[in-house]
Amino acid sequence: MRIKDFPLDHIAVAVFDLDEATERYAKLSPISIIAEEVVELQKVRVRFLQQADHKIELLQATGPDSPVAKFLAKKGEGIHHLAFRVEDIHSEMERLRKAGFQLLQGQPVTGALNKWIFFIHPKSMGGVLVEICQPKDQEYV
Amino acid sequence: MRIKDFPLDHIAVAVFDLDEATERYAKLSPISIIAEEVVELQKVRVRFLQQADHKIELLQATGPDSPVAKFLAKKGEGIHHLAFRVEDIHSEMERLRKAGFQLLQGQPVTGALNKWIFFIHPKSMGGVLVEICQPKDQEYV
Repeated sequence: MRIKDFPLDHIAVAVFDLDEATERYAKLSPISIIAEEVVELQKVRVRFLQQADHKIELLQATGPDSPVAKFLAKKGEGIHHLAFRVEDIHSEMERLRKAGFQLLQGQPVTGALNKWIFFIHPKSMGGVLVEICQPKDQEYV
Repeated sequence: MRIKDFPLDHIAVAVFDLDEATERYAKLSPISIIAEEVVELQKVRVRFLQQADHKIELLQATGPDSPVAKFLAKKGEGIHHLAFRVEDIHSEMERLRKAGFQLLQGQPVTGALNKWIFFIHPKSMGGVLVEICQPKDQEYV
């Protein structure tokens, strides 16, 4: 295992409306919007909020066939996944697969904020959808 | 608003079995068990795991009438709540109530690890159950 750490990268929350959700978090505590983008592969518009020492990723579906739209239809708004950062996503993917975790991707894919990501199936993680991510600009460090 | 910050205190996960869940997180990444106790009021046995820069609170019901038992029966294992730390829980409670959040307690109650806590109803927070907490030993600082 090459990673030195497993810090929380962000907590992702599925929402119907980014602006409405942002207002809710802003009422809860001081936040700042640090980024927003559409991730075509996941069919979501994401907005990252910085709240004190952590990031909240708000997820809004871009269409009815988005996995987030299906999540919302089934469960309503709520926490969608937890993301942990690693330093070598390829070796982590191999390590976790060998450890028996069911992964949702065969290889890392491009996620929000120019990161490599893959997901661990919630069935392997006690109902928690886990994202493993690595910023691409650390790829060759 | 007197708080300077709103850091993440922990991420709480409802589980059927603390040992099985601990093993799962230990397979995922290096963790250490930092505390375990029964919170009679909430009818849960909690175990805190330190994972890199954040804490995971595993929640196991102590009986069938525990709110966590009801959560597990309805939704299965998964993320139960997010907890944020504040410096003056009483003024935060007043501020959040005035801001229109529906709170689950009228006054802070004693939670795990000798903290004052109260919860914000998930209906007020887009499906996310939020705990606000303050360590009691900071009460008079």
